Amino acid sequence: MKRDDFLCQKVEPIELKTEMTVNELIEEFGKSQSFGAGRVSTACDVFERMVRDKNCTICLALAGAVVPAGLRAVIADLIRKRFIDVLVSTGANVFHDLIEALGGHHYVGHWSVDDFTLRKYHVFRIYDIFVPEEDFVKADAKLVEIFDEVAEESRGNTLSTNELIWKIGSRIADPKSIVRAAYDAKVPVFLPAIRDSEFNYVYWLHSMRQPASQPLKIDSFKEVQEFVDIVERSVRLGMVVLGGGVPRNTIQHIAATTRRGLDYAVVITMDRPETGGLSGSTLEETISWGKLKKTAENVMVIGDVMVIFPMMVAAVLERLGKDFIRRERSNQ
Amino acid sequence: MKRDDFLCQKVEPIELKTEMTVNELIEEFGKSQSFGAGRVSTACDVFERMVRDKNCTICLALAGAVVPAGLRAVIADLIRKRFIDVLVSTGANVFHDLIEALGGHHYVGHWSVDDFTLRKYHVFRIYDIFVPEEDFVKADAKLVEIFDEVAEESRGNTLSTNELIWKIGSRIADPKSIVRAAYDAKVPVFLPAIRDSEFNYVYWLHSMRQPASQPLKIDSFKEVQEFVDIVERSVRLGMVVLGGGVPRNTIQHIAATTRRGLDYAVVITMDRPETGGLSGSTLEETISWGKLKKTAENVMVIGDVMVIFPMMVAAVLERLGKDFIRRERSNQ
Amino acid sequence: MKRDDFLCQKVEPIELKTEMTVNELIEEFGKSQSFGAGRVSTACDVFERMVRDKNCTICLALAGAVVPAGLRAVIADLIRKRFIDVLVSTGANVFHDLIEALGGHHYVGHWSVDDFTLRKYHVFRIYDIFVPEEDFVKADAKLVEIFDEVAEESRGNTLSTNELIWKIGSRIADPKSIVRAAYDAKVPVFLPAIRDSEFNYVYWLHSMRQPASQPLKIDSFKEVQEFVDIVERSVRLGMVVLGGGVPRNTIQHIAATTRRGLDYAVVITMDRPETGGLSGSTLEETISWGKLKKTAENVMVIGDVMVIFPMMVAAVLERLGKDFIRRERSNQ
Amino acid sequence: MKRDDFLCQKVEPIELKTEMTVNELIEEFGKSQSFGAGRVSTACDVFERMVRDKNCTICLALAGAVVPAGLRAVIADLIRKRFIDVLVSTGANVFHDLIEALGGHHYVGHWSVDDFTLRKYHVFRIYDIFVPEEDFVKADAKLVEIFDEVAEESRGNTLSTNELIWKIGSRIADPKSIVRAAYDAKVPVFLPAIRDSEFNYVYWLHSMRQPASQPLKIDSFKEVQEFVDIVERSVRLGMVVLGGGVPRNTIQHIAATTRRGLDYAVVITMDRPETGGLSGSTLEETISWGKLKKTAENVMVIGDVMVIFPMMVAAVLERLGKDFIRRERSNQ
Repeated sequence: MKRDDFLCQKVEPIELKTEMTVNELIEEFGKSQSFGAGRVSTACDVFERMVRDKNCTICLALAGAVVPAGLRAVIADLIRKRFIDVLVSTGANVFHDLIEALGGHHYVGHWSVDDFTLRKYHVFRIYDIFVPEEDFVKADAKLVEIFDEVAEESRGNTLSTNELIWKIGSRIADPKSIVRAAYDAKVPVFLPAIRDSEFNYVYWLHSMRQPASQPLKIDSFKEVQEFVDIVERSVRLGMVVLGGGVPRNTIQHIAATTRRGLDYAVVITMDRPETGGLSGSTLEETISWGKLKKTAENVMVIGDVMVIFPMMVAAVLERLGKDFIRRERSNQ
Repeated sequence: MKRDDFLCQKVEPIELKTEMTVNELIEEFGKSQSFGAGRVSTACDVFERMVRDKNCTICLALAGAVVPAGLRAVIADLIRKRFIDVLVSTGANVFHDLIEALGGHHYVGHWSVDDFTLRKYHVFRIYDIFVPEEDFVKADAKLVEIFDEVAEESRGNTLSTNELIWKIGSRIADPKSIVRAAYDAKVPVFLPAIRDSEFNYVYWLHSMRQPASQPLKIDSFKEVQEFVDIVERSVRLGMVVLGGGVPRNTIQHIAATTRRGLDYAVVITMDRPETGGLSGSTLEETISWGKLKKTAENVMVIGDVMVIFPMMVAAVLERLGKDFIRRERSNQ
Repeated sequence: MKRDDFLCQKVEPIELKTEMTVNELIEEFGKSQSFGAGRVSTACDVFERMVRDKNCTICLALAGAVVPAGLRAVIADLIRKRFIDVLVSTGANVFHDLIEALGGHHYVGHWSVDDFTLRKYHVFRIYDIFVPEEDFVKADAKLVEIFDEVAEESRGNTLSTNELIWKIGSRIADPKSIVRAAYDAKVPVFLPAIRDSEFNYVYWLHSMRQPASQPLKIDSFKEVQEFVDIVERSVRLGMVVLGGGVPRNTIQHIAATTRRGLDYAVVITMDRPETGGLSGSTLEETISWGKLKKTAENVMVIGDVMVIFPMMVAAVLERLGKDFIRRERSNQ
Repeated sequence: MKRDDFLCQKVEPIELKTEMTVNELIEEFGKSQSFGAGRVSTACDVFERMVRDKNCTICLALAGAVVPAGLRAVIADLIRKRFIDVLVSTGANVFHDLIEALGGHHYVGHWSVDDFTLRKYHVFRIYDIFVPEEDFVKADAKLVEIFDEVAEESRGNTLSTNELIWKIGSRIADPKSIVRAAYDAKVPVFLPAIRDSEFNYVYWLHSMRQPASQPLKIDSFKEVQEFVDIVERSVRLGMVVLGGGVPRNTIQHIAATTRRGLDYAVVITMDRPETGGLSGSTLEETISWGKLKKTAENVMVIGDVMVIFPMMVAAVLERLGKDFIRRERSNQ
């Protein structure tokens, strides 16, 4: 590279005005192209291209308590619009979706309270969100009934996590529910660590009520083949990560084992690479594993998912316009 | 507190639509009130109230390389609108404002390059921004001339950092310049660590050209009295911190030594409290020092200034409307 | 509280000398009691008390790539000494233990390399560690054979993750192996997200070789009952978390669902609480869920596990002395 | 590079035993060479070589509240041993050293207290440290007297920050004081942001008591020439950074403007690079500025200074042995 190659595009000043749309703000970030503003601007570009690419299968990794924090309607909407083709989630986010779908709520709380007082009142805390234990109990009870029904229906056949979630989804009325939206849109929901969540307690309550041979059989390995099949049918593969953890690893692992590699990747996280964990690892690193193609469009945004992701989605919705339809149902 | 006190306000789902303004997005964050979304929403509320409060003196602390990254026009504009009454900055941010005002540029670069190649080409790197050394040299040369002129004008009198900056500002044409805007709007610019910046090198070049008795006398202590006088004339005091460091400490220190305490505070930072540094310290901690009033509206946003601050300003501009005028000039 | 209650213990200066043991350094941290030094010192105290408490069941949560980074011998040793009674791990850490046990290696690399070159050479990168693909392939092949054997042995019975790991452990010779140590010491190893790891690929290779009815049946729910039984037999419960994620959540969840609550907790992490994820959540928050007793001794250290944990273990080994035996085998 | 070049050194397992010295632990980290363990091990190597290099001028940058947290005796000792040749500090750390030297104290506190109660009791909080206001007042009073004396002594001559600190040091008895140690060892102490600290308040009290023409003249620019002279006399230049901020910038700036470049650099920080601030910037970036030589031995450790720095110093003291003398006084 010559000297001029390093000095070809100026950082343009961000300019704000009185009534800007979200995408107009992002366009200003694009003039800066620096630090977080540059990364967010690139994330919007990559997500836009992913969504416009009708031959791309978009996988969303969902970790961190974003559903309790109010992101469920956004995700359900993205699923209904088929901006997401596969959801890989922690068990907790899906369970908290069901808490709301089954009549429970999350409450605005504070991060600095006496947790022992909360304990006395049977109120659980997730940073600055409160959830009453009774809403867990209510969801548990309804889900045990659903598990009982599903067990009967499935007649001893083993279910994948997605098969279970769709069966639950078919019994949920709430249109803002992620689980219902996934059922309606036939978007698979994989829960690679389903056992590490309240679903595990529901399963235990359910199995107590069943004769030894009858409880539901859930196999978390079974979803792998389903995910592999989807990837192998896909022309291109995209990943959007909220947080990291098992959901990010699961998508990257499938991209490597199927020898496809991701074509697009956006990661939003606060984790950092130096301690060596997967959640903070750079997207460059994933190239060495064959998880990301060398030519992939990719960016890692360092920030709070609850701020960055809605901003990114709002900007891309604006770019696509009201009449944009991602995919004809008949084409699937 | 009774149990119901903990469960009185539900987390409402964030909902996005095709063409949202920035403030509409922030209002959605306000429905969540959780995690980063809640903090950003509160930051907009606090900043709005600060700006609407015509008896509040608003101090902006500027640290981190936000000017190279393209934030200078935003800050200059806020100064011209008198949304900021006092600017406390690192020397570097003001110097980089002058680099652009004097014809230099910052360039879009990349964080992963061979820095030794940059070195060979005399190109400096600030994360993913490149600056050619020649633009420093050009600014140095022009500033030395200005220093010479100012030395003659001031005839041996000692200048505060603000007096120096205004004298420079009067010689700058660029309307997007922070320094010019501050001069025009008569907004003081304090540089408590002016010696720790390129100004120091300019000063040295200047003093080499002067007979021993003649160089400019800059006293970084002198600004203290100026700042104290402003605070003592103020009814209320507000602080907005981008980053932290010396600028944040300077404002908080004045709030304590004048025994006024801040009435409003917004801090945007990525630093964390556990290692005990000032930049990551909580706003609660500042109450113990008398720097923040117990009743002050305050919030700390954990995020990248380049994303959060423009978002917050755009939302507040929208709330105030086009016809809002913060302060009549004649009232000052 | 009266004023003097806030001012009763002075921060004593840390003093260093030429030949200090690790515990002598920690004792100096204990004189400071401040910032990270205070937290590390408290972590050693809590871990020491946990280990001295023969009626405490100590659960270690293992996330992040600490085994590739060289921590396997430390963990294997702690298992053999019964300083750990239950290991809850990501699949990856256990798999990387087996890579080494089966003749593979991890190599000292660098975080700043061309990952595409690594890709060409079939070398995988974990931050600054390199692993050749061939060592994965070798481990995969040997594990498929073990899976085949275990499938035959188990005759269609479903295995928990721990039963699988012990069966593997019985076939491993390497005494530094975590898996072998766990088998020898009869320390259960739970892998709540086993499906999200290379074990999943091994399972798939194995199942390809088997007639449809014969492959191994692994049920990640089955370990729950095993873990519950252990907790219910325990007088007290302790947790040491390296990293966070699913392993931390699993232990905390068991502590809550069994209504026992943890008596001791040490968490070492770099995650922060504000974004609301489990890994960065404070230990105070876990009190609201009944996962941690109000009276529990607990501390969260903000730091790199690879530095903090060996330091803590070395200090506690020194405090206990060479002749300390945690538990007579006959007592189990 | 060929494939084998990437796979030449194995990650060896860390092994712990009952009575290890700090350096034995660091040697184990050196066997791992990975993540934080590798960085700490390298930091010890680089610091050791710096100290053994009698032609290297070692500059320590001191930011963050490490003196309140108990690090003053360690730093004073390093100064007396001439392991540090130049100290560049925030005003606060030096002021807190004087609080203790003048009879005040810092107290062990807690990060989660009601700060308004502290406010009522005139107790200041620094994360988990408490300082009574009266100890500030006591130090202020004594320092005003010293300022009065120094003003008389200096007869209108302008002082650099270091000249001021040495004059204070000559009046301090406490041998554990950084300021006294610096005076005794003739190690310069530069305070580039002296105005941003309690020194500023002392200065104001002092100037109130003086006839207009008589107060002390402190020029923060004057230290620059002193620092330049030291660097130009040096054969090689080393930097150890605790935290970042103005002290780190000052040293790096001198290394660039004198066109020497650093030969050794160790940075210990929790800041990250992506937001573009100086404190989190990589050492690679400083190469582009000519602040760090391409061939320099350097490492950045991500961690809490209060843990990492004492550990590193203890290890290096052990490596050097009791009889090591860094520099003959007569050679200076």
